[in-house]
Amino acid sequence: MKLAELLSPADIRKAGIPSLEELSGDIRRTIIETVPKTGGHLSSNLGLVDVTVALYHVFDFSRDKLLFDVGHQCYAHKLLTGRAERFGTLRHEGGLCGFPRTEESPYDLFNTGHSSSALSLALGLARAQALQGKTDHIAVIVGDGALTGGMCYEALNDIGHAKLPLIIVLNDNEMSISRNVGAMSEYLTFMRLSKGWQRIKHTFSKALLRVPLCGRKLHDLFQRGKDHIRNIFVNDKFFSSLGIRYIGPVDGHSIGQLSSVFERASHLNEPVLIHVMTQKGKGFPPAEADPEHYHNVPPAQAGTDAESAALPRLSFGEEACRTLCEAAERDGNVVLISAAMLRGTGFQGFQTRFPARTFDVGIAEEHAAALAAGMAKGGLRPVVAIYDTFLQRAYDQIMEDVCAQKLPVVFMIDHAQIVGPDGMSHHGIYGASYLRTIPGLTILQPRCPAEMRQMLLHALSSDSAYAIRYPKCAVEFPPYRASFQPGIWEEMRPGRDAAILAAAEMTGTALRVSDRLEKSGLRVRVVNASSLRPLDEETLRRLQASGTPFFTLEENERSGGFGSAVAEWCVSSHAAPPRGIFALPDAFLPHGDRGAILKRCGLDEETLSDAIAKELKK
Amino acid sequence: MKLAELLSPADIRKAGIPSLEELSGDIRRTIIETVPKTGGHLSSNLGLVDVTVALYHVFDFSRDKLLFDVGHQCYAHKLLTGRAERFGTLRHEGGLCGFPRTEESPYDLFNTGHSSSALSLALGLARAQALQGKTDHIAVIVGDGALTGGMCYEALNDIGHAKLPLIIVLNDNEMSISRNVGAMSEYLTFMRLSKGWQRIKHTFSKALLRVPLCGRKLHDLFQRGKDHIRNIFVNDKFFSSLGIRYIGPVDGHSIGQLSSVFERASHLNEPVLIHVMTQKGKGFPPAEADPEHYHNVPPAQAGTDAESAALPRLSFGEEACRTLCEAAERDGNVVLISAAMLRGTGFQGFQTRFPARTFDVGIAEEHAAALAAGMAKGGLRPVVAIYDTFLQRAYDQIMEDVCAQKLPVVFMIDHAQIVGPDGMSHHGIYGASYLRTIPGLTILQPRCPAEMRQMLLHALSSDSAYAIRYPKCAVEFPPYRASFQPGIWEEMRPGRDAAILAAAEMTGTALRVSDRLEKSGLRVRVVNASSLRPLDEETLRRLQASGTPFFTLEENERSGGFGSAVAEWCVSSHAAPPRGIFALPDAFLPHGDRGAILKRCGLDEETLSDAIAKELKK
Repeated sequence: MKLAELLSPADIRKAGIPSLEELSGDIRRTIIETVPKTGGHLSSNLGLVDVTVALYHVFDFSRDKLLFDVGHQCYAHKLLTGRAERFGTLRHEGGLCGFPRTEESPYDLFNTGHSSSALSLALGLARAQALQGKTDHIAVIVGDGALTGGMCYEALNDIGHAKLPLIIVLNDNEMSISRNVGAMSEYLTFMRLSKGWQRIKHTFSKALLRVPLCGRKLHDLFQRGKDHIRNIFVNDKFFSSLGIRYIGPVDGHSIGQLSSVFERASHLNEPVLIHVMTQKGKGFPPAEADPEHYHNVPPAQAGTDAESAALPRLSFGEEACRTLCEAAERDGNVVLISAAMLRGTGFQGFQTRFPARTFDVGIAEEHAAALAAGMAKGGLRPVVAIYDTFLQRAYDQIMEDVCAQKLPVVFMIDHAQIVGPDGMSHHGIYGASYLRTIPGLTILQPRCPAEMRQMLLHALSSDSAYAIRYPKCAVEFPPYRASFQPGIWEEMRPGRDAAILAAAEMTGTALRVSDRLEKSGLRVRVVNASSLRPLDEETLRRLQASGTPFFTLEENERSGGFGSAVAEWCVSSHAAPPRGIFALPDAFLPHGDRGAILKRCGLDEETLSDAIAKELKK
Repeated sequence: MKLAELLSPADIRKAGIPSLEELSGDIRRTIIETVPKTGGHLSSNLGLVDVTVALYHVFDFSRDKLLFDVGHQCYAHKLLTGRAERFGTLRHEGGLCGFPRTEESPYDLFNTGHSSSALSLALGLARAQALQGKTDHIAVIVGDGALTGGMCYEALNDIGHAKLPLIIVLNDNEMSISRNVGAMSEYLTFMRLSKGWQRIKHTFSKALLRVPLCGRKLHDLFQRGKDHIRNIFVNDKFFSSLGIRYIGPVDGHSIGQLSSVFERASHLNEPVLIHVMTQKGKGFPPAEADPEHYHNVPPAQAGTDAESAALPRLSFGEEACRTLCEAAERDGNVVLISAAMLRGTGFQGFQTRFPARTFDVGIAEEHAAALAAGMAKGGLRPVVAIYDTFLQRAYDQIMEDVCAQKLPVVFMIDHAQIVGPDGMSHHGIYGASYLRTIPGLTILQPRCPAEMRQMLLHALSSDSAYAIRYPKCAVEFPPYRASFQPGIWEEMRPGRDAAILAAAEMTGTALRVSDRLEKSGLRVRVVNASSLRPLDEETLRRLQASGTPFFTLEENERSGGFGSAVAEWCVSSHAAPPRGIFALPDAFLPHGDRGAILKRCGLDEETLSDAIAKELKK
């Protein structure tokens, strides 16, 4: 069966295994042809094609429920549920999202993106069904990487207690984004390499290749009794101690074997975890060889917005890594903590150079922050590198374990802006707001790598907690020549008719707005308000004294952000408030081109220039 | 040895077991005599006396490190480290904190209060030591309740991987605050009841009662080799699968047996978990019989502040429970989720009446929020009851799993104010700020149970997410007669000279401020601004139109709170901003009398009246 011949997901249930294998090959081809053009998660989606097809073969997801943890691995699912024709629009403005989106299809149950939450969501559905007397099947796909997140454990603890039927497919590809870490990963490796699995693999692999033959054989084995099931494969200790039946490991590329196991699991009236072995990048040799490189590939063409057209010579990530290496060279106490994001945040070079001082804790942001607190208490100088959106999960720990202890931990917070194609769950546009609610945390937002460098060095010499939020795109001109100090903003351009206090990359927009307004005869000052806490009170006071009308500009939600901080200060200081707070709306924004999203939110040069000109005429 | 004879913790190391047992009895007496007067955590502290004494007997905590998870069980530790004389000041203004406080003693390593973080902190210390070439022992006490928190698992995953020496004392008293839940709890019960433990207990219990005899016997057993250790007791599956050596169960009231086990564990060069069985309330028969009742006892005398003197007839908790029961009676889809806080939030009555619709997930706030999202998706109407401070841990899940899905989950958020004696880690004074950063969340703050009742009923009939934050003390007069709608505030008292927009219980303060100012001839209007999002824009616009100077008043930190929301609105609406934002400072506040803390922060009637009068004279 070809993808084009598929009229509805119901067709997959009726098809035979050879036909499904053909379908699987076609899906793989589609992904390999499309994703390098659109950009997206290549390796993990190729790895999960056969598992997805087998699930659709066994279950009726128009009624049964399929959940994806994180959700970046849902491409085959999208292709099978009526979205093959639109697949070329993946991650583009107005096109398909790279993650499940409830608005796209009834088969997408949740808008996902953050790791380790699907087991909780699935148990919620299971409990709802139990109360309502429904018996639809619930299957949830969770990666071995996600299993390092504590939320999974909280859910497993409850699932094992609730004893409701739930099919957990543990997609074990031996890595989350980069290679996995931690004792759980070692445990899964042990299970993979254990004698039982090897024996099964050799004895049955050929026989299991084709249904109905293999299906019946496996079925017969299962018939010996439920209690035998776990012993057919490997004797699990971890999941069974939490009251969850373990089946595995299963070859994640044998649709026949997978279908038989899923079929059998669907008859068990209890939670089952099926340990499925997949290969990232399966079917695309370059991705098989270096799956991490092909984890999230950029689109073939460069973006269109001004910043990405004028890419800085040295990115924030590269400069952060270089600066931290220098600091670590001088100070043996400098250490780095990452939550499965060493490559994403650009700190792989640090790991290469200081392996014993690099701690990748897996997708465990809570632990990362508290671990850093412990290290700081022990005299180290920990730097924690996490994306803005994922750091949300460590909110309580930054507050209670770091700041309430007055410990010097530096948070290097990448992707603190609209991220574009990854979309809703990945935009780093709430950080200024949520970090500002944490007492004692200094919050800095550089406009370029050179400024960030100074901030990082300053933070490492300080005795309290710092958060440095930075975007992907930089504003390199005019070159940063200031000597950074918290609470002192950089004057980027003078002007007496009005002032824009802009944060981070929005200083670039502010400069261009100033250019535009100059043509109307308005001289607009631009200030790089890179210190969010403390604010530059001296500059604010001088603005008041001069009577210059001023505006704030930031790529962060309005509630509680930079503009809000300035407004608060003005009220407290009995000063005239800003004439406008230009910020993103308090909303979840979809994926798409960053420039287009900014324009929709009124944060493009034209709209801003008009708004300021209009306000100044009042 | 008596507590009064103890000159320094070093004395405990030299003492013999009988002397330590005497000391233990004296500590227990001191706790039983003091805590009913001061208020505090009685049951858990009585349960941990012998473990604490044994730890101080084996380790030198002037150099070695002792960490408490949560920290409410640290009374014996405080009594042993030079704070016995001040013990009567426990939890009182200016007195000893009920939790470890770094400012109090060098033996208190972290300011704690939130659950499940100590393992991460301990590993941080261990890694710092490893890099610095130090070999001090690190012991961490974690309760079986805390083990339901995912952070513990994230830490165990990393600890088992790091393989650094660490002594984890699992204090298993079969309950966190109320009886434990979840598969882990069942697993620990299995371990307790297993044959191995029973055998050990019967064979050795008498012999182990006294050191040195028992010490040597146990020591000899241990000498058979490290690999035997785990088998001496029970064959653990869970911890060993994470690479952590398990020893136990051990009788947590035998100082001799505990000392021997700790001594031996201190020689192992790897992470060890010692499963210690303790009895909550040990030594105080009423607490032994009902440990939950004696978990956190109130002080003998009532508080002195005005609100608690005029206690409402029906508390927020009681009204919340009554209202939810009514709603559940009418609608079979209404369910309740709690994170080990059913009694604390007043919802035990709901559990009694609807046991199949009550889900206590343990200390797992992240899972609680996402579970609710799954349930809501499945058609249920979940209500999640969690204290304001602990809900911090579900920040990411409220954002991503609930609000980004537009799912109707109701968060009933108790203790949303200065809580008084529990102090720093328990004050619910950040919620208005952090919840306001979450798009799509309606945020309500009632002034009395009657208003909260209407809010809850409204929320349960709505199709989006609601957060209802309420304090312990209520403002019952004037009686609430309004018909609650989000975005409409209640006019409590008219007045044309100024207006105070007050949130929740601070409406009471606002009324008293208004009384005071009336004596100076100023007529100050009081508005119950119970809808934080949406704001009552109509009222704000009318205030603008009338030109009435207005002030905001809240028991929440200034950054990002209610006043900040009003200031943001004013800037966006080109309206005159509030003349003052009266809020708590952006700081971590210590424990003590709520009234005294408010006064220190300038939120008492006198200071507020003076500030408003002064501002109006301008």
